[in-house]
Amino acid sequence: MSSQSIAPALHGSDQPDPALLRVTPLFRDLDDDLLWRIARISTIITAPENTVLGRQGERVDCVYVVLSGQVAISNEAPNGDQAVVEIVRAGGQMFLSSTLAGLPLLLTGHAIDTTRLICVDAGGLLDLIRSEPTLATAILRAEALDFRQLVRQVCDLKLRTTAQRLGCYLLELTTDQKALTASMRLPFDKRLLAARLGCRQENLSRAFAALRDYGVETHGARVILHDIAKLREYSVPDDLPDGELAF
Amino acid sequence: MSSQSIAPALHGSDQPDPALLRVTPLFRDLDDDLLWRIARISTIITAPENTVLGRQGERVDCVYVVLSGQVAISNEAPNGDQAVVEIVRAGGQMFLSSTLAGLPLLLTGHAIDTTRLICVDAGGLLDLIRSEPTLATAILRAEALDFRQLVRQVCDLKLRTTAQRLGCYLLELTTDQKALTASMRLPFDKRLLAARLGCRQENLSRAFAALRDYGVETHGARVILHDIAKLREYSVPDDLPDGELAF
Repeated sequence: MSSQSIAPALHGSDQPDPALLRVTPLFRDLDDDLLWRIARISTIITAPENTVLGRQGERVDCVYVVLSGQVAISNEAPNGDQAVVEIVRAGGQMFLSSTLAGLPLLLTGHAIDTTRLICVDAGGLLDLIRSEPTLATAILRAEALDFRQLVRQVCDLKLRTTAQRLGCYLLELTTDQKALTASMRLPFDKRLLAARLGCRQENLSRAFAALRDYGVETHGARVILHDIAKLREYSVPDDLPDGELAF
Repeated sequence: MSSQSIAPALHGSDQPDPALLRVTPLFRDLDDDLLWRIARISTIITAPENTVLGRQGERVDCVYVVLSGQVAISNEAPNGDQAVVEIVRAGGQMFLSSTLAGLPLLLTGHAIDTTRLICVDAGGLLDLIRSEPTLATAILRAEALDFRQLVRQVCDLKLRTTAQRLGCYLLELTTDQKALTASMRLPFDKRLLAARLGCRQENLSRAFAALRDYGVETHGARVILHDIAKLREYSVPDDLPDGELAF
């Protein structure tokens, strides 16, 4: 994260196809007409690796939706230590609540791969929210889901050991929730994984070693889960899905 | 937290004075007419100590604003471990984002003292949001501030030792930000403080012991900070105020 450079000439010119906006749960259920109006205040941009998309303490004038690639969202403490709060991947959005509330960012976002994003103009979005109650409802819901992700993370940090947190994270990466075993590639390097889990790199190594007893085998970025049930029992992932909605 | 009882007959009959709604930043800047309309869908209730005001996994039909007393907001892991996410005090609100989004609660709220609250009907509030853009803006802003508090907590948990987190918490409790020394009473017991900080009680004792070198003296619930500057330097509290707003 030391080689960050401020977003160079990121203003894209391509207006996204309205259907593309459905990549994010934020816009997924909106009707076609409203999607058209959001598309008209949006552009697609491509951010090279290490581009800073918004910096802690500053304001940005758009909400980003990730189409491909990955963005690390992190906070730097006064002494220079860095906490990675989240890695945003395709379908995720960022800077939503601070930007709509007119607040400076608490977190810096930087592209860890070449990343394609939709940039939705914040002022235009606020205008639409004021005139379109369904959009206001969608935004409230998206903010609630973001909030819940953070609540989960706070509980994770308070209740679980590093090895358990790593176990939960690996279980999240398994796409087939009913599989008995899984094989995967870590989506980013171990330095970033340690920062995301809130531990030092040496503790991450110890956590991987501790998970060997629960069927976790690693070869560099390659991870094999030989016994998902055993790993689940050890890591105690929470069972608070957002699936059971009221709508 | 073992002696919780479900909120017994909490439905108050007193409609709050509209000005009372200004206790919370959520409603502080709304005009008098809008406050009247919110007061009309609100009641004041008194919750005895240990009353459960909403339970994880269930839905509530109102947003609570705390007038006096304290409410612990916690999450119970599948194995029964409990993480206290926050202690809500006078002026704080709770269940805002989940309730407005129609989602079941992720967290249980229970009164740790006798607590007076305003209960604002969620359906009525949603109706008002749809017709009153200034209320929608106030809600978005309140949710953003709640989100930022959690972001701070995630960073706190990832970057700081237990002793530093305790130091930051004690610094937060000092009312005079420019004082050189401070004397205070912990607002709740050490068991709850440990759960809020995300540590075991024995680690909290060790953290208090570690802070002795930084001028922190304790006698039961009484805490004296003899050298705030030294404690601040050790604990590295973040300097990300929400004061510098765009409005």
